[in-house]
Amino acid sequence: MQHLQKLIFDSIKNSQFPNQPSNLYDPIRYFLSLGGKRIRPTLTLMAAEMFGIREIKDALSAAKSIEYFHNFSLVHDDVMDKAPLRRGKQTVHEKWDINVAILSGDGLLVKGYQELANCPPLYIPELLKTFNRVAMQVCEGQQLDMDYEHADSISMSQYLEMIKLKTSVLLGGALQMGAILAGASLQDQKLIYEFGENIGIAFQLQDDVLDAYGNPETFGKQVGGDILINKKTYLLVRLLEIVEKEDKPALDLLLASTLADNPNKIAGVLHLYQKYAIKSSADELKDSYTKQAFERLSAINIPNDKKEALITLSNQLLIREQ
Amino acid sequence: MQHLQKLIFDSIKNSQFPNQPSNLYDPIRYFLSLGGKRIRPTLTLMAAEMFGIREIKDALSAAKSIEYFHNFSLVHDDVMDKAPLRRGKQTVHEKWDINVAILSGDGLLVKGYQELANCPPLYIPELLKTFNRVAMQVCEGQQLDMDYEHADSISMSQYLEMIKLKTSVLLGGALQMGAILAGASLQDQKLIYEFGENIGIAFQLQDDVLDAYGNPETFGKQVGGDILINKKTYLLVRLLEIVEKEDKPALDLLLASTLADNPNKIAGVLHLYQKYAIKSSADELKDSYTKQAFERLSAINIPNDKKEALITLSNQLLIREQ
Repeated sequence: MQHLQKLIFDSIKNSQFPNQPSNLYDPIRYFLSLGGKRIRPTLTLMAAEMFGIREIKDALSAAKSIEYFHNFSLVHDDVMDKAPLRRGKQTVHEKWDINVAILSGDGLLVKGYQELANCPPLYIPELLKTFNRVAMQVCEGQQLDMDYEHADSISMSQYLEMIKLKTSVLLGGALQMGAILAGASLQDQKLIYEFGENIGIAFQLQDDVLDAYGNPETFGKQVGGDILINKKTYLLVRLLEIVEKEDKPALDLLLASTLADNPNKIAGVLHLYQKYAIKSSADELKDSYTKQAFERLSAINIPNDKKEALITLSNQLLIREQ
Repeated sequence: MQHLQKLIFDSIKNSQFPNQPSNLYDPIRYFLSLGGKRIRPTLTLMAAEMFGIREIKDALSAAKSIEYFHNFSLVHDDVMDKAPLRRGKQTVHEKWDINVAILSGDGLLVKGYQELANCPPLYIPELLKTFNRVAMQVCEGQQLDMDYEHADSISMSQYLEMIKLKTSVLLGGALQMGAILAGASLQDQKLIYEFGENIGIAFQLQDDVLDAYGNPETFGKQVGGDILINKKTYLLVRLLEIVEKEDKPALDLLLASTLADNPNKIAGVLHLYQKYAIKSSADELKDSYTKQAFERLSAINIPNDKKEALITLSNQLLIREQ
């Protein structure tokens, strides 16, 4: 897996963009230089390798298209969320302005499609369909996320649908594109896609848990950050669903408070999470999605040793910080 | 040409979008309902017909992809330009908000690529390359337009390059995609593309002239609107290039004034345009681009009667209001 990650790192690092107009291409170069783990394009390469692609370099353009798409969505999401920082550095709209962020985001999306056009022509129609489907779903997920932010409450099924669209389908799509390029059957494409979708939901549930229960020394962000802003994570959605009448007023008070007027906001919410066993419930659901993911993987009709790399990566990502 | 325009009108009118998330799809439906002449997708169909496509409906998806792309760029441009109105109706960011406009614009761009994926698979790789090249150039043109808005002055070659990228390449690309679908040779693709690029620049120069010299009763916008905001049109760029020292202070005063402190701003600038024969110079340049466009068209290796529809449309568009 590391050789694939290196391949994609080097390839993105060596991407060439024109110099002019600098207000279009400098922000693109800047944002790509902020790094990230390049998990999604690595998944494309891993799936291509797993399904026995002849030349891994034939999957490199598809992998990059996924990474550019991901970065497009981050640039625009940062504008919509008014986020000042991304990976500890200024976001594009902070470093330049909103117009530059909109347009360079658009440029990154088009660049993603340009990489798609560099794929082996035989596979382009199928890759394009997959990429488009995922791209539209990611837009839908982002819209739901914004809608739900302003909603009084949302159901657990709404929450799970939103995180599926906003984050998981892209993992599934990244894997499916690798499978397409290796000539995998439609059935195997479906299975690897569903592996990605399920494991993606498991990752997100884990993220929700880590935000409240992560190790402050290694977490990298403020533990309890989601709690402070009443973010509708699995934990809060679940608590709101099952909290009993006797605890509702206390919860409402906590949600109405800020760190300034209630220094115990995080502790208070954590106490309720504890009382209602919310973390266990999240862990169980995460395990259930993980199990479903691995079932899909094991149903894929290739020798098991080919699946090792994907299992190893998933397990690495699933046990971090715990 | 009218049957083709009707085909595209009906097809876009009958486009289906999901109901949910409504904040993603309602703005897309709304914006598409504002209409417009659908010139660009009509060009795709005309080129396909001209080069002898067997079934015109095989070009309909490509035509729609161009129109969705055009609408994406309008939604985002309106945000960047802070425009309150589009075709006399509220822009998306005014009717909803900026976030909705960013995301529904993104959705329109992806929708454009979805239509591309519905084209005959054999041609998809080539169509995708053409579409991508044009899409990136339109982004470049929009960035240059924003950069130049804040620039003290720009050269005529900068201005012409900007309008080429921002508006003409899309006309060229629309035509080229029709040619690709009809199996035209690379040479003929190049010629029809260049016809579109040149005629597009002629249209834009005409627009610049009309803004200052249009008939107020039929123009639909305030005549002199560009002058009031010191917009860097052909006319102003040219005047700034050739104005003599004796008139420079008067021009600077006019540019520093607004309608409020100088009700004669428009008349004053028009006087200078008159003195330096700016309109004649614009008309000459427009004619020169038109001539180049028709030379490309006549070099295309098909019977002349096939070219009639495109010539008729161009002439209709080129003589309006004059």
